[in-house]
Amino acid sequence: MDNVKRILTGDRPTGAMHIGHYLGSLKKRVELQNEYETYIIIADLHTLTTKPNKDDLKDLQDRIREQVLTYLAVGLDPHKVTIYRQSAIPEVCELATIFGMIITVPRLERVPTLKDQLNNLHIAEPSFGLLGYPVLQAADILMVRANCVPVGADQASHLEVTREIASRFNSLYGKVLPEPKALFSAESTLIGTDGKAKMSKSLGNAINLFDDPEVVNKKVMAMYTDPNRIRPTDPGKIEGNPVFIYHDLFNENNEEIADLKSRYVSGQVGDVEVKKKLAVAINKFLDPIRDRAKINNKKDLLEDIIEQGTKIARKEAVATLDLIKTSMGL
Amino acid sequence: MDNVKRILTGDRPTGAMHIGHYLGSLKKRVELQNEYETYIIIADLHTLTTKPNKDDLKDLQDRIREQVLTYLAVGLDPHKVTIYRQSAIPEVCELATIFGMIITVPRLERVPTLKDQLNNLHIAEPSFGLLGYPVLQAADILMVRANCVPVGADQASHLEVTREIASRFNSLYGKVLPEPKALFSAESTLIGTDGKAKMSKSLGNAINLFDDPEVVNKKVMAMYTDPNRIRPTDPGKIEGNPVFIYHDLFNENNEEIADLKSRYVSGQVGDVEVKKKLAVAINKFLDPIRDRAKINNKKDLLEDIIEQGTKIARKEAVATLDLIKTSMGL
Repeated sequence: MDNVKRILTGDRPTGAMHIGHYLGSLKKRVELQNEYETYIIIADLHTLTTKPNKDDLKDLQDRIREQVLTYLAVGLDPHKVTIYRQSAIPEVCELATIFGMIITVPRLERVPTLKDQLNNLHIAEPSFGLLGYPVLQAADILMVRANCVPVGADQASHLEVTREIASRFNSLYGKVLPEPKALFSAESTLIGTDGKAKMSKSLGNAINLFDDPEVVNKKVMAMYTDPNRIRPTDPGKIEGNPVFIYHDLFNENNEEIADLKSRYVSGQVGDVEVKKKLAVAINKFLDPIRDRAKINNKKDLLEDIIEQGTKIARKEAVATLDLIKTSMGL
Repeated sequence: MDNVKRILTGDRPTGAMHIGHYLGSLKKRVELQNEYETYIIIADLHTLTTKPNKDDLKDLQDRIREQVLTYLAVGLDPHKVTIYRQSAIPEVCELATIFGMIITVPRLERVPTLKDQLNNLHIAEPSFGLLGYPVLQAADILMVRANCVPVGADQASHLEVTREIASRFNSLYGKVLPEPKALFSAESTLIGTDGKAKMSKSLGNAINLFDDPEVVNKKVMAMYTDPNRIRPTDPGKIEGNPVFIYHDLFNENNEEIADLKSRYVSGQVGDVEVKKKLAVAINKFLDPIRDRAKINNKKDLLEDIIEQGTKIARKEAVATLDLIKTSMGL
């Protein structure tokens, strides 16, 4: 068993990521990379669980490169973290096939995110792969023998499946696999610019990490605020007001925030001023990210990072599969 | 698309096979090897769908060699057929993972053999792998782009899943996969020596292909016959009488069969004579099989056959996966 503190984390290659992703996971990863051996999976096979159509895959290669660029831009260092592509590691499917033999269908049907996905995506009948999503994820995590996984509260139920699979495997074939622990991120999910739902690319309520300054300005100026406040002289509400939520999260000038808040509740500031100052703050936050994206925006470099990372991850995968097959007698 | 007529067939590595297996599938394969490019899978991963315990796997390597020996003994020619080991081909799991994305859980739950297996094996909750059995089988079949699959009537429903997956894949990503047809075997299942159930290793009612002549004698002498016939002078019943079913199948001396039958129905022959002559006939049938088994029972030879076969099959698997990934844009 490895003694190293090792993390598995990652994303589906959705392309552009937004400030909600930053707060929800990327920021934490940047901190963790100095403390943990970090593997970051670009989970292209997982994309197929809900979007197996050819159209959904057509710009996949571009999105994968953009994903890597995003990691570099937020400050992940490819010399510290291993970024790899899921579908380039055949062993993950072998592991998933084996793990599928030791977890039951009813157990997977009880994973709460499955029901959520069926509802949200209006899927009448789940594919076998969608039901097996947590099994493939267990293979991702256990493939590198990660002992920690940073998760949002909504993903904790998936990690529970991984822990059960590891535990069951160990009891059947001997103690081979770690039972990875959850590292909960401090930040909860970020409300979108519409003030209605979690920030999400598909809902059009997101500020992307690579948005140009003018785009950010436009999006901020169109943000939802306190709906009961008609004139600048009306007293406004701060709680649950996305403009102030963002100020708290992105504006480094605490005095400015305090000043705006006190004038807002007493009806002495217009939305325009609050928003303009927020746009400035967000753009200030995004500047170094956009800068790093510019510097590193080279196709060859990005592909090289994936290729090198995949080599390293694959070595781990081969070693794990070997351990597993040996302990099973396969 | 390949124009060659290609078959995928095979078995779980259960070790000793019996005369029921011979009539049900092996005999047909020996004929087909001259007409079709034949791939024979030793499906060790499928073993895990119902028996994932360490004890069930402990003599797996021996059983795999015995499986190959059986193939040689019944007359399959490794220069004509490709015998390979499922778990040595990682691409099959990759294909299964992809295929799992394009078939639904309810569809797999409707496969009739699933319910049978749950009942027969007293499984309360199927493993994810057991539900996915037909998906892994589809990967086996489509991996070598087989266009024909010899099946018993009870397996036709599995092949239907394979055909649906191929058809759905082709409609989603372009015409890449053949939709394999069933080649039904003429022989139905063989009744066991107990006259009660299908011949099966686990029921103890089987005559194995490698049984010694004395063992065959013993098993035949203990066979179930017409239960209403007490004395040799009682008229006996031929229909459904396993002793005569076996005579018809294994005794090449048609005159002898006719003579025994007419004396049996008129109460002029004892069970002992009928059985002794059957034992002689079965031993005569088994002699060349046992001889070939003796000659070929060399560990190195058997392992070499699997290794060579696996190389050939893997080349096909890599080519198929490449076709599939390219057409998907993965």
